[in-house]
Amino acid sequence: MKVSYPSSRKIYVKGRIHDIRVGMRQITLLDTVRIENGVETKEKNAPVVVYDTSGPYSDGSAVTDVRRGLPRLREPWIDARNDTEHLPAFSSACSNARLFDGRLDAIRFPFVHLPRRAVRGKCCTQMYYARQGIITPEMEYAAIRENVQYGDPDAASHITPEFVRSEVAAGRAVLPANINHPEAEPMIIGTRFLVKINTNIGNSALSSGIDGEVEKAIWSCKWGGDTLMDLSTGEPIHETREWIVRNTPVPTGTVPVYQALEKVGGQIPELTWEIYRDTLVEQCEQGVDYFTIHAGLLRPHLPLVRERTTGIVSRGGSIIAGWMTRHRQENFLYTHFEDICELLAQYDVAVSLGDGLRPGSIRDANDAAQFAELSVLGDLTLTAWKHHVQVLVEGPGHVPMHRIRANMDEQVKHCHGAPFYTLGPLTTDIAPGYDHITSAIGAAQIARYGTAMICYVTPKEHLGLPDREDVRAGVIAYKIAAHAADLAREHPGAQVRDDALSKARFDFRWRDQFNLSLDPERALEYYRAGRLGDESDHCTMCGPHFCAMKLTREVNDSKIQEFKDSKIQEVSDSKIQEFKDSRASGGDDCPAQTTVTNH
Amino acid sequence: MKVSYPSSRKIYVKGRIHDIRVGMRQITLLDTVRIENGVETKEKNAPVVVYDTSGPYSDGSAVTDVRRGLPRLREPWIDARNDTEHLPAFSSACSNARLFDGRLDAIRFPFVHLPRRAVRGKCCTQMYYARQGIITPEMEYAAIRENVQYGDPDAASHITPEFVRSEVAAGRAVLPANINHPEAEPMIIGTRFLVKINTNIGNSALSSGIDGEVEKAIWSCKWGGDTLMDLSTGEPIHETREWIVRNTPVPTGTVPVYQALEKVGGQIPELTWEIYRDTLVEQCEQGVDYFTIHAGLLRPHLPLVRERTTGIVSRGGSIIAGWMTRHRQENFLYTHFEDICELLAQYDVAVSLGDGLRPGSIRDANDAAQFAELSVLGDLTLTAWKHHVQVLVEGPGHVPMHRIRANMDEQVKHCHGAPFYTLGPLTTDIAPGYDHITSAIGAAQIARYGTAMICYVTPKEHLGLPDREDVRAGVIAYKIAAHAADLAREHPGAQVRDDALSKARFDFRWRDQFNLSLDPERALEYYRAGRLGDESDHCTMCGPHFCAMKLTREVNDSKIQEFKDSKIQEVSDSKIQEFKDSRASGGDDCPAQTTVTNH
Repeated sequence: MKVSYPSSRKIYVKGRIHDIRVGMRQITLLDTVRIENGVETKEKNAPVVVYDTSGPYSDGSAVTDVRRGLPRLREPWIDARNDTEHLPAFSSACSNARLFDGRLDAIRFPFVHLPRRAVRGKCCTQMYYARQGIITPEMEYAAIRENVQYGDPDAASHITPEFVRSEVAAGRAVLPANINHPEAEPMIIGTRFLVKINTNIGNSALSSGIDGEVEKAIWSCKWGGDTLMDLSTGEPIHETREWIVRNTPVPTGTVPVYQALEKVGGQIPELTWEIYRDTLVEQCEQGVDYFTIHAGLLRPHLPLVRERTTGIVSRGGSIIAGWMTRHRQENFLYTHFEDICELLAQYDVAVSLGDGLRPGSIRDANDAAQFAELSVLGDLTLTAWKHHVQVLVEGPGHVPMHRIRANMDEQVKHCHGAPFYTLGPLTTDIAPGYDHITSAIGAAQIARYGTAMICYVTPKEHLGLPDREDVRAGVIAYKIAAHAADLAREHPGAQVRDDALSKARFDFRWRDQFNLSLDPERALEYYRAGRLGDESDHCTMCGPHFCAMKLTREVNDSKIQEFKDSKIQEVSDSKIQEFKDSRASGGDDCPAQTTVTNH
Repeated sequence: MKVSYPSSRKIYVKGRIHDIRVGMRQITLLDTVRIENGVETKEKNAPVVVYDTSGPYSDGSAVTDVRRGLPRLREPWIDARNDTEHLPAFSSACSNARLFDGRLDAIRFPFVHLPRRAVRGKCCTQMYYARQGIITPEMEYAAIRENVQYGDPDAASHITPEFVRSEVAAGRAVLPANINHPEAEPMIIGTRFLVKINTNIGNSALSSGIDGEVEKAIWSCKWGGDTLMDLSTGEPIHETREWIVRNTPVPTGTVPVYQALEKVGGQIPELTWEIYRDTLVEQCEQGVDYFTIHAGLLRPHLPLVRERTTGIVSRGGSIIAGWMTRHRQENFLYTHFEDICELLAQYDVAVSLGDGLRPGSIRDANDAAQFAELSVLGDLTLTAWKHHVQVLVEGPGHVPMHRIRANMDEQVKHCHGAPFYTLGPLTTDIAPGYDHITSAIGAAQIARYGTAMICYVTPKEHLGLPDREDVRAGVIAYKIAAHAADLAREHPGAQVRDDALSKARFDFRWRDQFNLSLDPERALEYYRAGRLGDESDHCTMCGPHFCAMKLTREVNDSKIQEFKDSKIQEVSDSKIQEFKDSRASGGDDCPAQTTVTNH
């Protein structure tokens, strides 16, 4: 499978500390052509380099085969650290059983990569290394990627490898990097970096096959998804995930309780810590980079949900609530949270603390249940950090605009600087079918306030599973929100692409305008839909006489100088005064009728 | 032509001061069905009444025929005021000429309504009446419409007819109501009212016919467009507009300089005040409710544009700039602004002060050119008000999120409370094909800060003229932005629809969820796309085991009470403390490896 972008080529920027090369997309631009006084002049436009999440799929010289999986980029880096070991078999009962289940032969990923785990007494998390003062290849890689937005990836900026290290050490940024997912290209999630977007795919008991999910995963990376969650809830969960993890160049997350519940036939009361733990081990060894774990939803919170309009809308949260209610016991994810962290540290799986009580409607936003859980998530953050486990904190949900800021403020207050990762929020409930828009409005704002990663919502939210085109619509809406927030946060260099595109627009370099856009294919398609064949210097929107940019150019190119010479400015200033004077003397009565003639 | 909405009926609320009836849409809901302990109980859900912009098209008992035009609702009210007269002929040379041009017979609207104009010495603007203390039927009508959002249009609220009057008198709200557009249903635009959206349609020299434009106009009203601008720049402009005005139940605006320029063959230097003035008269007498007039763009501003990335992107602005440059004269719209106001007052046409220097790219946002013009618009506002002409002030454009607020603040500072009416703003330049989203993000925010009306942007912005589906996409994106702002401004009753929809969602009343949404057809289509035939209590998104709402309901319905009884809360609280204590004693070292077994 291949991914391509028009007028683009894959470039690689080499590391200075480590022997690494970081892939980026370089967009070549046409010259600006001007005709002044009958003389044509050309001006070169520098190529624009943009952040690239498509991995080897967009490298024409790379061989990609979904049946073999992606190259294992990080394997030598992990080897060189010499703190992990290859295991002779999977540590999960489930993984081993499925590996030898002949009924799964037809759908199993063809290559088995036996897992790797930290050597006893060692810790292999990026947070641990960062705290030791070590700049890993992953950190340098992530730093170089961030600098793409400067227009010149070699340019000096404050986002150095050392800066990445210090942010990871402090817990203010997460660098998801399971040692069993060496295919993923390192990237960084934190308030001081570019806003990232997560996309969700995955089947349900009623839906699509493995091929469709892998295709959606690659499709998500093509359009700009920074991370990917496989939220499959229908069998074969294990094999679907294997295909996805082996073929995605971005960090991959899951909600392990979904699979744990499938293991007990969907019967919530049958869930046990042991089954859940085995599921974590299974997924750690497959290469999942972060787990959403609803460990902050506690029994005392449940009565707070009773008066809500939409109760609990988190699938994981509702499972845990059901389990606690049935067993009259505290959330086992909470009581076993130290065990979980010990396990995750052995593989460098990050924990994404799930907000099981996120509001599912405008009316439920910012309520006692939501903020009570958030405060527990802050406590759990410190627990995870004690084990050098990287932490994301999840946020809502459905929130009206005037209550968005409070979500960020509460998160900052309780969560010790851990990156915030929100689902939208949706700013109204009344637009099913368009919730990529209701939520992009909220996501742009919460990202502006400091949220590090925003989880996309597709047009099918609340209605069904997204198909390929829904994934594209969701990703683009969220790339817009993330980029709008990067601009508003004045991320250095974020505006380079806007400036280049707007210059192309003003120059009538239509192709450059499309090629610089988030979705060149769609822009070209819409442009063509309105055209009558030619590619001249106007579009159907205005026609030839009414193109403002064309008219401005005429004004700018030939008239401004003579205009300046004529000292018209003083004349105008005096006219304004004169006009103001005349107005001041006018009365407030209804003006006399002016005779309207036919000429 | 008819417009329909599922499970909806047209209702009319009667006035208390005047003999008027205000159309609204009432959505009927199903009962909530609960089964507790095997017993089924039903709970009625009150119908929800929503604001309706579709006029007679959604009234099954009304006869609508685009060849006859809509009923002339306001004609008796205008007659009763006895301050206007029917003219024996059109006052515009152009109107009369076209009326008798046989080549136009085939495309001319079949009925000629001779125009009405204020009697000499009288003033017929809503602002004038308001300042006299008169509550017109239009004001009462607008007040009743606003109250729909309370869920009960009869409920007492602060939005009384007197409140509408006082806001119009103060210039803080505009009630567009050309005496020659009696077909339009009165509505109110102001910061203290529901946020309104404007839609743009219209042909260019390269595009669509009259039928297509009329269809788009009605389509816009169906989806919720509050006002409509006909921005046609291609012939036959006059006839296209006539069909649109006669068939739209919402106020209609134009940019008269477009037609004036067509009258001189697209040759900007040939434009004259006389031709422009005749065009104003022509359109006043056709029934255009508001004119965008770029009177604030002055010669001293032009040098400020030179360093911009995208120069002047307003079509009207670029025409005026070209004219000023060529003639070395001040903007004739500025020098003749008093004349314009005298004319507009005779028909109650509102002026929408155009921002010819609005930024067309992120880089140009909030620059000296933009704010210099805005300050002139503030001066012109006072001039218009002196003539009792109602005023809207137009705003940008392309603005990054962190600079949006400053636009509202500057407008408030300079424009004396006149309603702000913005195009977006687009919050990034890099997403052509998706600018309904880039701009809905900005529009929601500027509306939250106080903008009264937001002008939609369609997915075709920058690329071509919108078709029917683009109009729908643009309108829905902007209804979302407007409603999100209404929620954030805590407009009384705005949340009724969200609450009802979310309750329907939680109840699995799928049909009600769709019927209450902004686009019931799209929601149903998406829902069906993912289904396998049945309409049970889960969708393909989660499948039967993972529906959070279903699980919550189980928790809520039967478990909370026993949960409360068991005093589990105290137990949990002590567990939290215990957990915190254990954490406090933990070290910061890397945890010891836990043996992972296969079970």
